[in-house]
Formats: sequence, C-alpha cells, structure tokens
Amino acid sequence: MKVIEGGIVSARGFRATGTAAGIKYQGRKDMAMIVSDSPCVLAGVFTSNVVKAAPVLWDMKVLRQSDYAQAVVVNAGIANACTGKQGEESCRETASEAASLLGIPEDSVLIGSTGVIGMPLDMEKIKNGIRAMVPELGNAAENGKIAAESIMTTDTIPKQVAVQVEIKGKTVTIGGMAKGSGMIHPNMGTMLAYVTTDASIKKELLQSMLERDVKDTFNMVSVDGDTSTNDTLLVLANGMAGNEIMDGEDEESRKFFDALHYVNENLAKMIAGDGEGATKLLEIRVTGAANTEDAKKLAKSVTESSLTKAAMYGNDANFGRILCALGYSGVQFNPDQIDFYFEAEGKRMMICRNGQAADYNEEEASALLAHEKVVIDIYLKEGQGSAVAWGCDLTYDYVKINADYRS
Amino acid sequence: MKVIEGGIVSARGFRATGTAAGIKYQGRKDMAMIVSDSPCVLAGVFTSNVVKAAPVLWDMKVLRQSDYAQAVVVNAGIANACTGKQGEESCRETASEAASLLGIPEDSVLIGSTGVIGMPLDMEKIKNGIRAMVPELGNAAENGKIAAESIMTTDTIPKQVAVQVEIKGKTVTIGGMAKGSGMIHPNMGTMLAYVTTDASIKKELLQSMLERDVKDTFNMVSVDGDTSTNDTLLVLANGMAGNEIMDGEDEESRKFFDALHYVNENLAKMIAGDGEGATKLLEIRVTGAANTEDAKKLAKSVTESSLTKAAMYGNDANFGRILCALGYSGVQFNPDQIDFYFEAEGKRMMICRNGQAADYNEEEASALLAHEKVVIDIYLKEGQGSAVAWGCDLTYDYVKINADYRS
Repeated sequence: MKVIEGGIVSARGFRATGTAAGIKYQGRKDMAMIVSDSPCVLAGVFTSNVVKAAPVLWDMKVLRQSDYAQAVVVNAGIANACTGKQGEESCRETASEAASLLGIPEDSVLIGSTGVIGMPLDMEKIKNGIRAMVPELGNAAENGKIAAESIMTTDTIPKQVAVQVEIKGKTVTIGGMAKGSGMIHPNMGTMLAYVTTDASIKKELLQSMLERDVKDTFNMVSVDGDTSTNDTLLVLANGMAGNEIMDGEDEESRKFFDALHYVNENLAKMIAGDGEGATKLLEIRVTGAANTEDAKKLAKSVTESSLTKAAMYGNDANFGRILCALGYSGVQFNPDQIDFYFEAEGKRMMICRNGQAADYNEEEASALLAHEKVVIDIYLKEGQGSAVAWGCDLTYDYVKINADYRS
Repeated sequence: MKVIEGGIVSARGFRATGTAAGIKYQGRKDMAMIVSDSPCVLAGVFTSNVVKAAPVLWDMKVLRQSDYAQAVVVNAGIANACTGKQGEESCRETASEAASLLGIPEDSVLIGSTGVIGMPLDMEKIKNGIRAMVPELGNAAENGKIAAESIMTTDTIPKQVAVQVEIKGKTVTIGGMAKGSGMIHPNMGTMLAYVTTDASIKKELLQSMLERDVKDTFNMVSVDGDTSTNDTLLVLANGMAGNEIMDGEDEESRKFFDALHYVNENLAKMIAGDGEGATKLLEIRVTGAANTEDAKKLAKSVTESSLTKAAMYGNDANFGRILCALGYSGVQFNPDQIDFYFEAEGKRMMICRNGQAADYNEEEASALLAHEKVVIDIYLKEGQGSAVAWGCDLTYDYVKINADYRS
C-alpha cells in the first residue's frame, strides 16, 4: 500500500468541486459536489441518533433501494435536521436538480448537510449552487481540495487522504475527505465523510467491510460526546480500476480492506485532532484488557473524560484523572496493576506504575504534553484485549465556539 | 414536613466543627468533623468507580462490619486515592487518633477525603487537625456552617439543608451537608454528602431507603460526566428524637422517607447549581416517556450534553442540540411528536412543537435563559414515564479550573 497526495478525486473517474452558495456563511465556500463518470457501488453507515436529519434518511433510502449511486451534493451551514416534511422535500428537490443537470437518475444522488439544526434550507440557494458547480467539476488535485474545504464548518483544516494498492495486478486507488469538529462521538464518529475508489467490488462485501472497519476507526473518535443527527460515512466504488471484481474474503480483498482502513483511520484521527477548539490530538492505547470490548470501553472512557481533557489542555500530568476515567468505564479490572506512559515525538515517560504515581518529573511531563499529538499508552495485565481511541483536549475555545454557535 | 435553617448539627445530639489544617490549601479551612453524642445507625452509598479511594474502602468496611458509627472526619485538598497501602494506613491512623480523643471505638469513625488523586496525606497535619477540632465541636448553627465550609474544594458556596417531620408524635430532624463541584456524574452523584438525623430507625430500613432515594436525587446530577473515586453519601441516625423505632414500610416511615428525600434532592440540586465554573442550574424534566427508565436516560442525556451545556452558557435557545441529545440517549421514541418548553422564574416559553422549532422569539428566549435556574420541560407522548435530572452550563471557568487544577 502506498500513501499518495490527494483525496476525493484521486481514484479514476471521480470529479468534484465546491462553491460559495451563501447558505448561511458569507464569503466562504459552503457547498460541494462529487460525481463519478460511471455508476458506483455504494456502502454507507449513518448516525445512531434517533433524531435523523432529512439527508440521512434520504441516503439510507438510496443505499437500501437504489442499484447504484453516482453523485453526492453536500452543504455546510444548515443541517436540514428537525425540519419535518419540508426537509424531506428539500432533499428530493436537491437530488432532482443535480440529476437533471448530470443526466442521471434522481435516486442515484446522495445528499449531505451539516450545520445548525432546525432551520430550513433556502432551496433557491441550493439550486443555484448546484448549477454553479456542475460546469466546474474536475479531477485535478485542486478540485478535491476545494470540495474538502467546502464542507467545513468549525473545522480549521480540510481533511483528505488517499492511498493506492495493487489488487489482482491492477492499481486501485482509495481517497476520502471528511469534516468533523463538533458533535463528534463514538456511535458513528464523524459528521460527514466521503470515500471514493475505482475498485471493482461487490456491494455486499463493501458494506460489510465498512461496517466492520468503522468500529475501529470513526467509532473510536470522540470530541464532545454528542452524537450528531447528521453523521454520514459513504464509500462509492466505480470499478474503473478494472480489477477482477472482489466478491469474497480473500487475500486480495484483505489488501483492499487494509487500504480502506488506512483511509478511514486517518480521516478519523484528523477529525479528533481538529476537534472544536482543540489544541492537540490524544491517542489512547489500551493493551492487556480482558478482551477487545473492555479495551474499547476503557480507551473511549479516557477520550470522553472532561477532566482528563481539560488537564491535557493545561499540560497537567494529572495521572489520577486518567485512572479515574478508566475506573468508571464500566469495565472491571484490578487498579493496583495498571501501568501507563505518556508519549510524544519519540519521547516516552512512565506516569503510573501499579496504580500509583510513577517517579516522574512534573516539568518534563508537562513539556511532553505540550506537543500536538500525545499518546497515552495503558497496560492492564488482565488479558489479551487491545484498542485505540482518539480524542482531543477541552479548551476555552470549545466553550466559546459552542456558546456563540448560532450568533 | 417543615424546612428549617441549619444542616449537619440540626438534629439532636450532633456536634461539628472545622479547621484549617494546611493539608494542601493555605489559609482556609480544610478539615471537618461530625460527632454524635450517642452511637448511630449508619447507611451509606459509595462511588461505582472501580478505582475507589482508601477512605471509601474504609467507610464501606465500617458499614459492613461495625455495629454502629459515631464520628466522621473529612479533609479537603487531597483525595487519598491511588495511594496503595500507605493510603489504607492513613485511614487507620486517622480513625485511631479521632477514636482515642473521643473515647469511641476506631471502627465507629468514618473518613472522607476530597481533592487531588495520587498524593499521600501528611499524617502529622491530619492528626494536628483532629486534635484542634475535638475541643471545638459544638451544636450551634455556626458549627454546622463551619463544617460545611471546611469540606469545600472548588465549591463556591457551602451546601446545607435541614427539615423536621413528626414521626409517631415525636419531632424528628434531618440535616445534611455536601460538597460537589467537579467529578460529578450520575453513578453516585456527589463527591461527599453527610446527613444526620435523630430518628430512631432500623439500619436495614435506613439503608434500603437511601439506596432507593439516591436513584432519584444524587444519581440524577451531572456536572461533567466524571464519576469520582471518592463519592460518598452517609446517613447517621442516633435515635435521640425518641420516636418509636421505624422498622418497616408504613405511613410514618414514608413521612421520614419523604423528608430524607427532600434533604437529598436539595443537596443534589445545590451541587449541580454550583458545578465547577457553572453560572446556572439546569433542571431537565421529562414527562410521557415509555417508562421511568427511559425518562431517566433522556433527562440525563440532556444534562450531560456538552453542546447543550455550552449553548445554555451562551443563553442560546439552540433547541436542536436538546433534540439531538434526546436522540442519542439510547432511548427509542418518535421525534416528530416531542414538545418542550423553557421555564424560569414563572415565565414559560414553548421552544419545540412536534420535533420542530416552535414559533418563539429568540431574544425573549435568550433573556429567559439568562436566569440562574432554568427548567427544560420535555413531553414525549409515548407513555407514563417521568423523571427529573439536574445539571449546569459548561463555561470558560470549568476549563480554566480543570486545566490549572493542581497548580
């Protein structure tokens, strides 16, 4: 597997672009489109929230009922959630407009929305946006970057990743983009993530791979514990790499799975590191839990602890808050045999030995925590279960962003 | 039932005091004692955290093994958690010192600690504190207030409440004090709460009442989702009211239960309203859920939502975040039939009707949210389940307090 520059247009046959449609933000891009030259096999996972936004319900229907998908229309600023019948109608009109301009069926158009809940979309702006974007669709690296920028809300950096892998003698490319920031929580991690690939793969296999992989990637990310109404992760595969179709679990499809995992994991980590107001990415590794499920619960519990997150913001090696978060995770373990380490840029310090403070220097620990990526590496000595979760620190800016969000 | 001024020394035969022992804080009171003139029946509930502080383990042993309890020694500043054998030994020495000065058995002395995890207690300071307090023990209102002040950490106000109720012709008094602030979460709500009563009551009945009531009071409070290693709620009943002993569920013991509930609920609400950095108390009422368990989950989910809490801080009537938090609570319901209202100081506004924004004025809603106590009153129309939970807003100061906590 080779990591390459690029994102959503790196795979053959995908074009994208973005535009400033003025939906809510002024003077910045807020709509994106992705279009495939040929019909795509589609896989998707969606928010577990009972309150599902209209575009989520639309995409779930496309996934369930359509033979293939070919385009995605995304807007930022307004989430089209809690908007009732009017919200559903907005989705239909959006798909209809894109379909007629692209000459594809309405039910092959996917829709994503992110932003404020409860406000209606101005359909004139959406339609104008689509009309502006269709002639601009392209497959240059710049097009992918524009699309990734256009779906941002409080994100501070566009999030893209792409890889190539040889499948049965053909080069298969997988690229993706995502937006995250707030309302990010393990039960389906990101607000919006789109992955495109030119692989030829059976729909059922792609869907099962995605459902399996999301448990170790997007679902291991937490920014603030709020599971959004709009979370959507879609994978479109158009088969243009020309590989013999993957239709079962074998060595070749395993290579594809690993490549898909790389894309998902990296998009997920970018979302955690760019959490609203965050100054650093936290990676929580748990080793030696009784089993994998326990390891996941323990790792997530630390990423979700407000006290741990605030301490990380203050570069405070407050080991007790980490132990405390492990303790209330719901997992049973012996606290007297826990060890853990802090790690950043190759430097590693033992912070906790057998459930008590290790003999570490506070100033050195604080300097280590000042890095942009910090690993907390935890050993329980209970069994063989391991897991990794990602999160971020809790900062003044998180509060500021979310106290003023709508103003 | 009559609410009276007072707290921990309002019931007959209880004395208390506090002192500045210099354990961690300088120049402020940080140790408290409560002593009963006669042996007490004891009931208690403790943190569900797997990592339990030494004083929690000590108190659990007293509750399990001792026939009665008679004194409580509490320190603030250092939690005596994650301190291993040394922590256990500190508890034994603390109890021993108090017991010998008071002339009571060592295993009738209860211990509470709150503060930083992982640091050892300086036993000379603890013993000096006990020696300073014993001669100062008293039952004037001022003594109760001093004790309540002495257990504060980041609390901004001391928390006390007291009530009187007639039980079989005798006046029974129940008084309590608590400290809360950070590391407050539903699985056993407050860090430390102590309730004293002169009621005569059987131990088993008192324990079962406490376990039942805590589910609707302390366990419905969330400040930050972190369940402490030290959470302790103790009730001491010395029988000095002279009522015929309560030993079963009847009308008289029901009156006592209601009075105990009032004390617990009010201490719990004080903890929520004085959450670290909080500017307001949020009361979340849920009516019409399918059952009580669902109602509790829904109410808690709103109190725990970082996004809702930040919006409340900003006086932002962001109804979508409340709907979103209900949606990811794990409870199934029809989002299209939810209504809810904001309420403060007698003013009531409909914010959400049938899952969509009601026709409310944003400025008026914002003005309403600016009050110190705000109720969010939610109707699901699914069944007969109802519940109330308490929380607070998420503010810059929460982050500040917890980024700098140990410095």
